[in-house]
Amino acid sequence: MKVAKFGGSSLASASQIKKVFDIVQADKQRKFIVVSAPGKRSGADTKVTDALIAYYKAYKSADEKGIHYYQNWIIERFREIYDELGLKSPVINQIAENINHLAQLDLDNVFTYDTFLAAGENNNAKLVADFFNHSGLPSRYVHPSDAGIMVSSDPGNARLLGGAYEHIKYLNELEETLIIPGFFGITKEGEVCTFSRGGSDITGSIIAAGVRAELYENFTDVNGIFAAHPGIVKNPAYISELTYREMRELAYSGFSVLHDEALVPAYRAHVPLVIKNTNNPDHPGTKIVVQRETKGSPVVGIASSSAFSSLYVSKYLMNREVGFGRKVLSVLENLGVRFEHMPTGIDDMSIIIRSRYLTQPISKALISNLTESLHPDEVYIDRDFSIITIVGEDMKEHVGVTARATAALSKQGISIAMLSQGSSEVSVMFIVKEKYEKEALKAIYSAFFD
Amino acid sequence: MKVAKFGGSSLASASQIKKVFDIVQADKQRKFIVVSAPGKRSGADTKVTDALIAYYKAYKSADEKGIHYYQNWIIERFREIYDELGLKSPVINQIAENINHLAQLDLDNVFTYDTFLAAGENNNAKLVADFFNHSGLPSRYVHPSDAGIMVSSDPGNARLLGGAYEHIKYLNELEETLIIPGFFGITKEGEVCTFSRGGSDITGSIIAAGVRAELYENFTDVNGIFAAHPGIVKNPAYISELTYREMRELAYSGFSVLHDEALVPAYRAHVPLVIKNTNNPDHPGTKIVVQRETKGSPVVGIASSSAFSSLYVSKYLMNREVGFGRKVLSVLENLGVRFEHMPTGIDDMSIIIRSRYLTQPISKALISNLTESLHPDEVYIDRDFSIITIVGEDMKEHVGVTARATAALSKQGISIAMLSQGSSEVSVMFIVKEKYEKEALKAIYSAFFD
Repeated sequence: MKVAKFGGSSLASASQIKKVFDIVQADKQRKFIVVSAPGKRSGADTKVTDALIAYYKAYKSADEKGIHYYQNWIIERFREIYDELGLKSPVINQIAENINHLAQLDLDNVFTYDTFLAAGENNNAKLVADFFNHSGLPSRYVHPSDAGIMVSSDPGNARLLGGAYEHIKYLNELEETLIIPGFFGITKEGEVCTFSRGGSDITGSIIAAGVRAELYENFTDVNGIFAAHPGIVKNPAYISELTYREMRELAYSGFSVLHDEALVPAYRAHVPLVIKNTNNPDHPGTKIVVQRETKGSPVVGIASSSAFSSLYVSKYLMNREVGFGRKVLSVLENLGVRFEHMPTGIDDMSIIIRSRYLTQPISKALISNLTESLHPDEVYIDRDFSIITIVGEDMKEHVGVTARATAALSKQGISIAMLSQGSSEVSVMFIVKEKYEKEALKAIYSAFFD
Repeated sequence: MKVAKFGGSSLASASQIKKVFDIVQADKQRKFIVVSAPGKRSGADTKVTDALIAYYKAYKSADEKGIHYYQNWIIERFREIYDELGLKSPVINQIAENINHLAQLDLDNVFTYDTFLAAGENNNAKLVADFFNHSGLPSRYVHPSDAGIMVSSDPGNARLLGGAYEHIKYLNELEETLIIPGFFGITKEGEVCTFSRGGSDITGSIIAAGVRAELYENFTDVNGIFAAHPGIVKNPAYISELTYREMRELAYSGFSVLHDEALVPAYRAHVPLVIKNTNNPDHPGTKIVVQRETKGSPVVGIASSSAFSSLYVSKYLMNREVGFGRKVLSVLENLGVRFEHMPTGIDDMSIIIRSRYLTQPISKALISNLTESLHPDEVYIDRDFSIITIVGEDMKEHVGVTARATAALSKQGISIAMLSQGSSEVSVMFIVKEKYEKEALKAIYSAFFD
């Protein structure tokens, strides 16, 4: 059996939902359907979830006009789809009632905001289920509480509770096609609690893991993943298959097709994932697998990401001080600063940190705390770095990947500020000044793909 | 004024000591002379310090025969030099008395072993001072207690106490050429306490810093430092000048000309150091400076060092866990394991550790403690790695050093297990399997020096 998750743009209008229906009907294995809230129909459109946020704000500030405006806007948005789908069921009244009822929830309840937010997915699932039934496919709307998606009480950042999979697996015993709203779960106290935003991907992944699906299909509005950002590299190659580790490295380093956390449940359950295009379902898409055969180019993709800083610490004979590195990291941790990488020399280390962590007061505190506790010879922060990451499981089988990449950078006169190749060999990271980022990405891409 | 330190082979015989005299007399600036114990005259010879260790062992085990044997051997060793130098002073009786007296020291005193050890340098300084005076150069033997070398009470690992330099600088006011025994200082309680072995270099460096010497001359039996190990690379280039940072990186990575800690006092006091050959004093030697003009090749030297292991830890989304890196390092620290480098990927890190730390029980404890506290997906130790380090201050001015080195390795089919280039850019480190070490060093050397 397969889990198919459809994103907001795949469910933005009646015509899109019809495509979804055709896709689901075309393959009997597509039994578990996870839906997002209706997204934008065009660039200027508003997503239902954004309207729900505005609705919540109006409610919170007791803005009666605003409340009515958004209630109507949201209900009309659903009604328009309902009408175009040719439905005649009471579902639209249930949706309207649900939307209106939100403005009666207790504002002191920390889960009220999440309940507003989740109403987009929740009501869309009802609508989709109704349309599927209407079109002749026996379907059932399944609320997360019935699906067994039990989560922690962390509003906006829910985590699946241990043991939840035991409940989710019973979904296998239901006979209809199941339509499950994405993005939220239910706490032990029965409250709606959302995953981090974009979390419908997470729901799909959890369901895929729970029912032990043979495949998790993630339907979006792109054919798949490119080997480099098409905004920088012209007509980049398209990736047909990559591993979870490769996807994770690319996602971390700037690729944003899939929600980061969403990969974990499917990965841990060894369920392969495929990214497909609702508007072009015959395209094979990009498949993410646990393991793949090594073949062809050693490099699967190249990502780049900007806004990094480097905290440089040096001390003569630092290497002899047991615990020096740990102490540096403790100072960072005490200030709540997360580090990304830590290339070390003999007597110096550079700690790569996302620049957003290094506000003026934090930077000052970092330098002064490090100076006080470690008496370094030098400690300073250097800004405006980008990380270029070359990703590929096959790299370990290929001598010379780093050689090819460094030669390409050297040929362009691009200086490598830092370079780290770990023992996993799934990736090599080049840190360059931000101003060289695009040029560096292009040069490395050419070296491997042209 | 200059500090000149002479090593054991420079003082192993009368003819060597005469060379030392000629060197000192040739330059009036050579006022502070630090001496080692007499070293080997030939490959099969015994160093005086090693004889002192044997003497101590005999004394400790109350082996009267052994005590007498070593007392005589050591005294005769000094007497032979004394005779050959044509001396007629009472100094040889003082030396004999001092050596014999060692076997009356309190064995329960933790400094007794250090007092035995230091007797080689201490008596040699008396002998050298006597010969210099005899040869017409007004000289004075200065015991470390008179030189102000006040140290901590750590037998075998003394550290200079804060404030000692204030005393040492008064040596400038003495008029004679000063002969100071290397290798030991005096504790607050007046006990002899040695630096770590090879510590005469440390004494020289401390004196150089204390008297604010214009130059610290370190006389050995080599012309200077080669750009790569002559046992691996045939006829390597010779380094005429390098910085302390470069020297430190090379020393750490396998170059063993100078005692590691010995560089610190001179470096901190901004005193340049020159390594010269007692047997070839006209050779300019290798100069170690605080800063140097960048010119010529970006690479000054290439070192290699074996017996490293890699502790690999991976966990999906590890990167999101604040404090993960710090926790890994804490586990290491709690087991007393020092780490050398820590190249990181997104979800994995490799911690490079000297293999000698990773005994079977420690390795087992490491893996189990890490597993328990961090629940990684994977954690294992991989052994038999060597580190090849390319060193050069000019590297930051030269794009393409890494490119050239990686291309050289790639051409030889040598796989780079890990690679780290920190932001200091004084060095780039390549980690390869031990079996490739020599081949890798040769390939990289050729790329930069041939």
